[in-house]
Amino acid sequence: MVDLNLGQALFHPRAIALVGASADPKKNTSRAQRVLHKAGYAGRILPINPGRAEIFGDAAYPDIRDAPGPIDHALVMVPAPAVLPAIEGCIEKGVRVATIYSAGFAEMGDAGRALQDRVVAVARAGGLRLIGPNCLGLVNVTDGVPITNNAAVEAEVLRPGPLGLVSQSGSMMGALLSRAGARGLSFAKIVSVGNECDLGVGELAELIVEDEATKLLLLFMETFRDAPALARAARRAHVLGKPVIAYKLGRSELGRQIAVSHTGAMVGGDELADAFFREHGILRVDTLDGLVELPRMVLGRSPPKGRRVAVLTGTGGGAAMIVDRLGSLGIEVVPPTPAIQETYGVSDSPLIDLPMGGAPGEYARVFRDLVASDHCDVVVGVLGSTSRLRPGQVNENILSVYDGSKPIAVFCAPQADEALRISDEAGVAAFRSPETCADALHAYLTWQAPREVPPAVDVTAAAAQVESAEVFDEVQACALFSTMGIEVAQTQVVTAPDQVRGIAGRCAVKLLSPDILHKTDAGLVRLHIEGDAPIAAVVTEFLATAARKFPTARIRGVLVAAMQTGLAEVILGFRRDPEIGPVVMLGMGGVLAELRASHALRIAPVDLDTAWEMIAAVPELRMLQGFRNLPRGDVAALAHAIVALSNLALLPKVQEAEINPLIIRAEGRGAVAVDGLVAFGDVHP
Amino acid sequence: MVDLNLGQALFHPRAIALVGASADPKKNTSRAQRVLHKAGYAGRILPINPGRAEIFGDAAYPDIRDAPGPIDHALVMVPAPAVLPAIEGCIEKGVRVATIYSAGFAEMGDAGRALQDRVVAVARAGGLRLIGPNCLGLVNVTDGVPITNNAAVEAEVLRPGPLGLVSQSGSMMGALLSRAGARGLSFAKIVSVGNECDLGVGELAELIVEDEATKLLLLFMETFRDAPALARAARRAHVLGKPVIAYKLGRSELGRQIAVSHTGAMVGGDELADAFFREHGILRVDTLDGLVELPRMVLGRSPPKGRRVAVLTGTGGGAAMIVDRLGSLGIEVVPPTPAIQETYGVSDSPLIDLPMGGAPGEYARVFRDLVASDHCDVVVGVLGSTSRLRPGQVNENILSVYDGSKPIAVFCAPQADEALRISDEAGVAAFRSPETCADALHAYLTWQAPREVPPAVDVTAAAAQVESAEVFDEVQACALFSTMGIEVAQTQVVTAPDQVRGIAGRCAVKLLSPDILHKTDAGLVRLHIEGDAPIAAVVTEFLATAARKFPTARIRGVLVAAMQTGLAEVILGFRRDPEIGPVVMLGMGGVLAELRASHALRIAPVDLDTAWEMIAAVPELRMLQGFRNLPRGDVAALAHAIVALSNLALLPKVQEAEINPLIIRAEGRGAVAVDGLVAFGDVHP
Repeated sequence: MVDLNLGQALFHPRAIALVGASADPKKNTSRAQRVLHKAGYAGRILPINPGRAEIFGDAAYPDIRDAPGPIDHALVMVPAPAVLPAIEGCIEKGVRVATIYSAGFAEMGDAGRALQDRVVAVARAGGLRLIGPNCLGLVNVTDGVPITNNAAVEAEVLRPGPLGLVSQSGSMMGALLSRAGARGLSFAKIVSVGNECDLGVGELAELIVEDEATKLLLLFMETFRDAPALARAARRAHVLGKPVIAYKLGRSELGRQIAVSHTGAMVGGDELADAFFREHGILRVDTLDGLVELPRMVLGRSPPKGRRVAVLTGTGGGAAMIVDRLGSLGIEVVPPTPAIQETYGVSDSPLIDLPMGGAPGEYARVFRDLVASDHCDVVVGVLGSTSRLRPGQVNENILSVYDGSKPIAVFCAPQADEALRISDEAGVAAFRSPETCADALHAYLTWQAPREVPPAVDVTAAAAQVESAEVFDEVQACALFSTMGIEVAQTQVVTAPDQVRGIAGRCAVKLLSPDILHKTDAGLVRLHIEGDAPIAAVVTEFLATAARKFPTARIRGVLVAAMQTGLAEVILGFRRDPEIGPVVMLGMGGVLAELRASHALRIAPVDLDTAWEMIAAVPELRMLQGFRNLPRGDVAALAHAIVALSNLALLPKVQEAEINPLIIRAEGRGAVAVDGLVAFGDVHP
Repeated sequence: MVDLNLGQALFHPRAIALVGASADPKKNTSRAQRVLHKAGYAGRILPINPGRAEIFGDAAYPDIRDAPGPIDHALVMVPAPAVLPAIEGCIEKGVRVATIYSAGFAEMGDAGRALQDRVVAVARAGGLRLIGPNCLGLVNVTDGVPITNNAAVEAEVLRPGPLGLVSQSGSMMGALLSRAGARGLSFAKIVSVGNECDLGVGELAELIVEDEATKLLLLFMETFRDAPALARAARRAHVLGKPVIAYKLGRSELGRQIAVSHTGAMVGGDELADAFFREHGILRVDTLDGLVELPRMVLGRSPPKGRRVAVLTGTGGGAAMIVDRLGSLGIEVVPPTPAIQETYGVSDSPLIDLPMGGAPGEYARVFRDLVASDHCDVVVGVLGSTSRLRPGQVNENILSVYDGSKPIAVFCAPQADEALRISDEAGVAAFRSPETCADALHAYLTWQAPREVPPAVDVTAAAAQVESAEVFDEVQACALFSTMGIEVAQTQVVTAPDQVRGIAGRCAVKLLSPDILHKTDAGLVRLHIEGDAPIAAVVTEFLATAARKFPTARIRGVLVAAMQTGLAEVILGFRRDPEIGPVVMLGMGGVLAELRASHALRIAPVDLDTAWEMIAAVPELRMLQGFRNLPRGDVAALAHAIVALSNLALLPKVQEAEINPLIIRAEGRGAVAVDGLVAFGDVHP
């Protein structure tokens, strides 16, 4: 649970120490004090500076320990090497939270990271929470408590508003303040999180979501550092009816991680982020201005029932730019209802073309009826030159008849600053570009409530299997999959050629060792071998090769398995992503899969519905579902296998698992795991 | 060749008749006259109105035939039914060009289209050129000659500038005027083309490109109606050093056309548009504001040498938003040269992070050195809060040191209207959103000079083959492909079962008829049949089935062909697109190709280089080029087949052709066409 007392110290401190406050107004480290004065902060301001008895009218102290009275919050601005002593001072003084502005930590490489780790260890031991380092601080705009050196915060007039913002980019904090401000939107609480050495985006989001003045939370993200806390924050926000909107840069480090299996290499970081946002009910925008133009569409609202948009427009070209994009994003643009068509003599085209300058009041009536109608989930009003030449018409035609029962969006095709201002003032989402409008509509219409986590299954038997093992070979991996309810191919392990006796049909032969990862590349896999003598020959060869090439590897014998046939091969993967947590992946098997990634990915565990969603997201699998009279495959068995594998999330020791391939047989005949691996997380601590 | 006298009548008419001019200032049809007066048009204005002797101070005439002196240009504003008589009047009066504002023509369905066709026929016979109908007219801004009822043109102050605009959306004309105006950009010539019954985008572009005042041409497009003229305009613009920038809506009608072969169904209209723009050296933007923010980056410039961008930024988050998008668009972001790294102590990160408020003049020096360096093709300056708080720094740090030797782009992360204004005034491309900035950079960096059309090949023999035929069956189609230089499978045609004698190996058997299109669906194709007796049985069956099911079809026998084997199957298609002209398509064969489109498309004919580009654009074909030690396929033979098929463009009678499949054998062993079709365009006139 989130610590609300911490929120108090963060946003409503009774006294703030400015550690390293400068008396030189040209220095950044002098700004925090000025900003506090300007905001009329009512608590005590305590500049800490060994060379001054007073700074800008406030009594200054050489050390925080010398400052009088209790201090809730310290802003630490001293150079990096002086931060650790400053933090020790804060702890001794009983400070609750320190915001570290100073740079020179993990962002500067290994030495900086080591220093940061020491600071964190000391703070943890002393019960002090930290924001930053290398951050621009935070602002409680609602109550006029800025704790920041940010030049933008000093320069802007900050009016209290309903938005919260947590930003992993310090400089984007000012950019978003000004962009929101230009649209008449303002903030309740703002935090720049810097290196997130202690308090991260997730925990801060949890705190801000509980803030009464904050009605909607914006996230500017570069990476995930505390995904579980962020997930909790988003789910709590949903309960409280506060939408969370994220913009996330795609440059994740995930792709660079060395993956034990193929799964890691095939799945990019951005898809993981998408899966995370969808899972937890966070709206994701793809445009910067989406962050500041979408809020008015979703403030106080819940996820929509459907994905249908109605478009009323005075300019065909202007509306087409939005509809074009929506089409490629899978959003349905719906024509007006027959009743509306009949009443107003409009056609059944999905773009309702109606100039504002037509019959008096007609545009307004159609707009009102669209908002009232149940056939769409959002109504877009696209405005042509009227919005520039007679901006008041926006009011007459849209705003005055809008009852708020359903979200609406206004897009002005020309440069129409006054019409935008009028819409902004009326609290209606107004868009400057067709791209941002389409982006926001897409984010809203694909917004889902946080997904219900499926009930836990019984993994007692599986847990027992992994408990004692240090490492799993393929046979053990498949045995675990079998325990989880996945059919696996029958195999036989031989440790000498003379054990090969009476094996029927074509076989796959493979060396069995948990220490040799790429057996195909090492020439230790052979397919389609038939008859005892040829198989025994391969066994002899493999054992010799392994002994020669991998003298230190544990050799557990040679695996002989009947070749499996079916209609298609897929890869099922499970992984604990270091940023996001457990995920399950379904991908096409074979060489083609590597040439053109085709896969679906979800946060694990998943239920059957989600497994079917994943299957639908891989177009090649339509081949097994009655496409062009091709034979149907047992896709239901695949769905069950996805659910089963995803439940490895309940075994904390399992770091990664892969079934490659899972062969899908004809309908009713199941799906069989032919080969696989399981990797443990605590083997190499 | 473009008729420059026509340009004179269009943009510099000595006298303008306003046919249907109203004396009621509330009516749209009164506006053109007001706009001409306001612009100080120096020629004669002749309102034509049967009920008035004078309108707004100009002598009015009941009929254009009554008006004195020669008239170059008529703006026709009468209701649709009165347009034809008005056009007849224009012809009698010797008017050169009529711009038809009136609506109620092809945009209203069949009756309107019939009326429009009559108007065009009369105008053609009378030597009168037409713009519209259903258009908003045109403006020669350079010389103050507006011929339009557009309210936006009346309301805006139009300053002459270097841009031309041809728009298929009338309402977007005003939107673009105002958006460009807000960025300090203005126009030389503007045309709204309406239904393009006579003069279309292409021919008007040809005229405007020759206009001395126009230095860059913008296109707002919904569809292609005269692609060959537009291609000529773009190529001429390239010669004259005038960039052409297009925004095109993707909602092409192409997908709905019934295609004889699979090619049509598999390839969407937007890829055709992309191929067209690339072929003819037109820059394509994907954002509306790209149209008005890209121009300053390319005015007076040629296509770049490489696709490398250098980024200097004061805000990591701000720059990352651009770089993220560029990465997914295939644009390379290059680190500074070692010399720049050393001189200024910056790292080798592709994002050069340098605050403007750092060492005095340092940002400016790095920026200058990047522009001077040969390691990049464009330099982006990303500005943080400085651009909002001290906008003059844009000047000190960028504009004052910029020598124009290479294009640059400025993006302001905050709302920084003043910095943008300063950049606009300095003639530097400044961007409001990271998405538009990335879009513009992508458009610039993928800009290519118009492609050289490969020299014509000798198609005499092929032409003779198609000349006399009314329709081609599969055998004739393959014979044509063979003449074009493509290896085709050996086949035998039998007309009775007893002709099947001594056929070795497994065969494909197929009914031969030019009149039955979907033979597989009709059960008239059977594969893997071996031996004379089974083959003869199939022949008997097919002839009986065909006679029963398709009694009127021409049956030319039954085709027996040895089954071909190879490493992969592709589909090669050729088509004369009704909008774009001849195109050639390469796609993967088989069922998977239908599940997930994977193909490349170019304007035909192509040369070998382009054929290799197409092969590289189909990821599955990497499988044949040494991927994972898989056997190499004869991709060179495929390239030659693409070139050969594309040369069907030289046979005007061939409307469409398809090889499906072309089987690619192992390296050095060729590629063989197994089946195919050729359709003629003039069979059903």
